[in-house]
Amino acid sequence: MSRLLDLNCDMGEGFGAYRMGDDAAMLDIVTSANIACGFHAGDPVVMRDTLRTAREKGVGVGAHPSFADLYGFGRRRITGERPEDLEAQLIYQITAMRGMAEVYGPPMTHVKTHGALGNMAAVDRDLAETCVRAVMAVDPGLIFVTLPYSETYAAAEAAGLTIACEVFADRTYTDAGELTPRSVEGAVIHDPVQSEEQVLCMVMEGTIPTTGGKRLPVEPATLCVHGDTPGAVSLARTLRNRLECEGVSLAPMHRTLGGG
Amino acid sequence: MSRLLDLNCDMGEGFGAYRMGDDAAMLDIVTSANIACGFHAGDPVVMRDTLRTAREKGVGVGAHPSFADLYGFGRRRITGERPEDLEAQLIYQITAMRGMAEVYGPPMTHVKTHGALGNMAAVDRDLAETCVRAVMAVDPGLIFVTLPYSETYAAAEAAGLTIACEVFADRTYTDAGELTPRSVEGAVIHDPVQSEEQVLCMVMEGTIPTTGGKRLPVEPATLCVHGDTPGAVSLARTLRNRLECEGVSLAPMHRTLGGG
Amino acid sequence: MSRLLDLNCDMGEGFGAYRMGDDAAMLDIVTSANIACGFHAGDPVVMRDTLRTAREKGVGVGAHPSFADLYGFGRRRITGERPEDLEAQLIYQITAMRGMAEVYGPPMTHVKTHGALGNMAAVDRDLAETCVRAVMAVDPGLIFVTLPYSETYAAAEAAGLTIACEVFADRTYTDAGELTPRSVEGAVIHDPVQSEEQVLCMVMEGTIPTTGGKRLPVEPATLCVHGDTPGAVSLARTLRNRLECEGVSLAPMHRTLGGG
Amino acid sequence: MSRLLDLNCDMGEGFGAYRMGDDAAMLDIVTSANIACGFHAGDPVVMRDTLRTAREKGVGVGAHPSFADLYGFGRRRITGERPEDLEAQLIYQITAMRGMAEVYGPPMTHVKTHGALGNMAAVDRDLAETCVRAVMAVDPGLIFVTLPYSETYAAAEAAGLTIACEVFADRTYTDAGELTPRSVEGAVIHDPVQSEEQVLCMVMEGTIPTTGGKRLPVEPATLCVHGDTPGAVSLARTLRNRLECEGVSLAPMHRTLGGG
Repeated sequence: MSRLLDLNCDMGEGFGAYRMGDDAAMLDIVTSANIACGFHAGDPVVMRDTLRTAREKGVGVGAHPSFADLYGFGRRRITGERPEDLEAQLIYQITAMRGMAEVYGPPMTHVKTHGALGNMAAVDRDLAETCVRAVMAVDPGLIFVTLPYSETYAAAEAAGLTIACEVFADRTYTDAGELTPRSVEGAVIHDPVQSEEQVLCMVMEGTIPTTGGKRLPVEPATLCVHGDTPGAVSLARTLRNRLECEGVSLAPMHRTLGGG
Repeated sequence: MSRLLDLNCDMGEGFGAYRMGDDAAMLDIVTSANIACGFHAGDPVVMRDTLRTAREKGVGVGAHPSFADLYGFGRRRITGERPEDLEAQLIYQITAMRGMAEVYGPPMTHVKTHGALGNMAAVDRDLAETCVRAVMAVDPGLIFVTLPYSETYAAAEAAGLTIACEVFADRTYTDAGELTPRSVEGAVIHDPVQSEEQVLCMVMEGTIPTTGGKRLPVEPATLCVHGDTPGAVSLARTLRNRLECEGVSLAPMHRTLGGG
Repeated sequence: MSRLLDLNCDMGEGFGAYRMGDDAAMLDIVTSANIACGFHAGDPVVMRDTLRTAREKGVGVGAHPSFADLYGFGRRRITGERPEDLEAQLIYQITAMRGMAEVYGPPMTHVKTHGALGNMAAVDRDLAETCVRAVMAVDPGLIFVTLPYSETYAAAEAAGLTIACEVFADRTYTDAGELTPRSVEGAVIHDPVQSEEQVLCMVMEGTIPTTGGKRLPVEPATLCVHGDTPGAVSLARTLRNRLECEGVSLAPMHRTLGGG
Repeated sequence: MSRLLDLNCDMGEGFGAYRMGDDAAMLDIVTSANIACGFHAGDPVVMRDTLRTAREKGVGVGAHPSFADLYGFGRRRITGERPEDLEAQLIYQITAMRGMAEVYGPPMTHVKTHGALGNMAAVDRDLAETCVRAVMAVDPGLIFVTLPYSETYAAAEAAGLTIACEVFADRTYTDAGELTPRSVEGAVIHDPVQSEEQVLCMVMEGTIPTTGGKRLPVEPATLCVHGDTPGAVSLARTLRNRLECEGVSLAPMHRTLGGG
C-alpha cells in the first residue's frame, strides 16, 4: 500500500537582522512551507528569500498569518478586536503573501494560521469563521490547513474550503481529538521513537491514539514538523527517512489531498 | 477648450487608534486616492475603510508605498539598505494594496511613492530605478505618478511605464523644474489666489512658472492636493471648483492620461 | 465644608506624526496628567512636550503604562505572558517616565495603568499584584491610582502603597462597586447633568450611587476626565467649574490624598 | 609594566522571541556590557536578563542607544529629524536603561552609541553634540565611550564628559585615525594574529598603526569585541587570554580610566 503525505513547517520567521530557525535546512526536508507574513514575524526580504528558495527546491508555499504582534511573536493571546477588523488583518497578510509569491516564488497554495490565533480559533467557532472568511475573501480555491476535531475544521468544511488535515508528531491527543494543552503533563512527546510510532499510526492506519487509550479516525494530508528548536532539523530528517522507508510518498499538499 | 485632470490626495494614513487628515471629506473632492500600505502609515482596517469609500464614490485608488518607518511617518531620510531589499519592501506594499483593493475596493490603478522616499528618488537615479523595478515586478500596466523633470520620471519612461505627470498647487518650482526645497524661502505658496493661478497656468497653458522667471513645458495628468493640514479640505474644494469653472473636467488618472 | 480633589486625564498619547486628544487644552483643566510611556502610545518627543507643558502649568505627572501594543493602543486584551515578563515591561515604562520627568518635567508622583491592562487587573488579583510589584520595584513612594472595590486596590493596599482612589464622572457603577461593563446598557452616562450629580454625590457625600440603587462608601482622591472624544474638553471644563462652585478645591493628587 | 584595560561588547540585542549573539558566553569574557535600550533592539525582558547576569558576573553596564529603528537594527542611516527630537529619543533610552539597572543590575556607568548613529556622529559635529547633550542631561557623571580622532570625542571633551577611549581589534585605521570605511578593501582584519598584534600595539605601546604606515598616539581605556558573528566568542576569549599573558589587567571601564 502506498500513501501520500505532505510535510509542512513554519518558516520565514526572521525579522530585519533577526533569524529564527534553520530555513535552508528545513527546505531540504519538507514539502510545504508556511511563511510568516510580517505581522508576528517575517518581512519582505525574508519572504523574498524564503519564497525563492522554496521555488528552487520545489517546496509548496502558503501564508502563515497571525495576530499583529511582533513583540509577542504571535504567541500572546489577544482578544477585544472586532471580528471584521481581524478579518481585514488576515486578508492583508494572505494577499500580501500571494502577491509576493507571484513575484518571487511558486504560486501560493495554502493558508495556515499561526500560534495563539490558531490555538484560539481551534476551539472558538466565531474566531474560526473569521479565519475562514479571510481565506475565502482572497481566494476560495486556497487550501486551509487545520487540525481535525477542531472548530476551524468545522468552519472550513461548512464554507466549502479544501482542507488539508494536519497531524503532529510531537504532541499527544485527548479523547476529544484535540491536542493536549501544553500546561498538562505529557502534552509533548520527547521520545523520537514514540513520536515516529504515533506518526505511522496516524498515517498508515488512519487513527489517532489518544491519551485515554482511544483510537480516533483521521485522514492526514500533512504532518507538521518544527525547525526552530535545538535538534529539530535532525529530528525532522529522521522522521522523513522513516516515512519513506515505510513507503510513504512525500509531496506538497495540493498533491496529497484526496490521496491514499 | 476642454481639459482633463485628475486630483490626487494621500490618504489612509491613520494607524490603529490614530487618524490623519479628513479622508471622508477629501474623497468627495479628489478623483484619485494614494493609500498608505502599512509601512509609514496605514493598517488593514484603515485600508479597508478607505478602499470601500473610494469604491462608493468612484475614486481611483493607488498604492502609496514608503520606507519602513512608522515612527518617522516616512519623512525620515533613510539610507544604507541594499537596493534589492528596498525593492522587496516596495513590492510587498504594492502587492498588498493590490490584493486589498481586489477584496474591498475598485481595481488598483497606480503607484505613488511617499515622503522622503519620493523626494530622494526624484533626484537619485539608482533609487528611482529601484522604485520603478518594484512597480514593474508587480504589474507593468500600473500607472506611475511622478513629478516631471525628475529622475523618477526619467527612470519610469526608460522602463516603459505609463506615467501620470504630477503637479503641485502650493509649491514653487526652480528653473530646473524641480520643487524648490522646503528649506528655501518661498518654497511653499501660502496665498490661495497665487496657488490657483499657478495651477491654471500649468493645466490650461501647459507651462510651469519657475522662481527664476522661466516657463517650462508640462503636460499635467494629475494635481496633488493635501488633506492633512488645517484648512486643507476647503482649499482643495475651492481649487476644484475653480478648475471646473474654467472648463477643466476632473476624472481618475487612468482616464486623464493622454487627455487634452 | 471644603473638599480637595484631583482631576486626572490620560495624555501624551500621540506617536510620531500622530496626535491624540487636545493635551494643551486639558492641561489647563486638570491637576494631574497620566502620560503614556511609549508602549501603547507616546514617544520621547511627545513625552518631552507633555512634561514641559505640565511643568509650566503646575500639573502633576505620572506614568501611564500598558501592554506593549501600539497597534491596539493598549485596548486589546493580551494574555499568555509570564507575570515576571509583564512586570519588567511595566518597570521599564515607569522608570523611563521617571527619568524623562527628571529631565523635562516636574518629579513624577504617580502611576496609573492604561486600558485593557487596567481593566483586566481590576478583576484579576494576580495581574493586580504584578502591577503593584512593578510600582514598588521602581519606587515604593509612588502613588498608585486605582478604582475602589477592585483587585488593584486590594493588592496596592496589601503592599503598603499610597493609593489615590479614582472615580469616574461618566460611568455607572454596579452594586459591587465596579464599573458597569461597557457591553451593558447604561454603562456610560451621556447626560452631563447626571454626570455632574454623580460626581458631587461621590465627592461631597462620599458615596457611589449604584445601578441597583445602593450607596457605597467612597473617599475619592482623584476624578478621571477624558480629552480624546468630541466635546470632551468643554465637558471637563464645565465639570471643573461646577466643582469649584460647590467649594471643591482642585489640586494635584499628592496634595489631595488624606484631604477632606 | 602593568596596564589596565576594559573589554566591552554590545549585548542584549534580542527582541521578543528573537536572540542575537551569545550574551551568556560573552559576559564571561568582557568587563563591560553595552546594552540595547529597546529602540534598535532589546526589550524589557532582555534588558532584565542581561542586567541580572552582568551583576552576577561583576560586569559593568552601560546604555547602547540608537535611532528608533527596530527593522533596520539601527544600521540604517537616518536623517531629517530635528536635533532636539533625536536628543529626546536618546535621553529616553539612557534613562530607561539607568532605571532598569537600578532595579535589576549594577549601577549604569557608561553610554555608547550604536551602529549608524555612532558612525554618523563620529564625523558630524552637530550630531556628536546632540549625543553628548543627551548624556549630560541624564547624568554628567556618566562615562562616554567613543573613538579617538572623532567628532564625538571632541564634543564630549568640550562638554567635560569623562571619555573612555575605545579601540578596535578587527578594524584598520586611516592616517586620520578614523576607522577605514567598510566599503574600502582592508577595512576589516580577518587574521586573528594581526588583530592581536594591533591590539598589543595600541594597548602596550599607546600607538595606533595606520594603513598609511603612521603611528598615532592613543590611550585606550576600552577594547571593543563582538559576540554576534560565527567564531566571535572564541576570538574574544583568545584575545583576552593573550592580553592577560602580556600582563594587562582587565577591569570595568570606570576602573581603567586614567589607569596605566
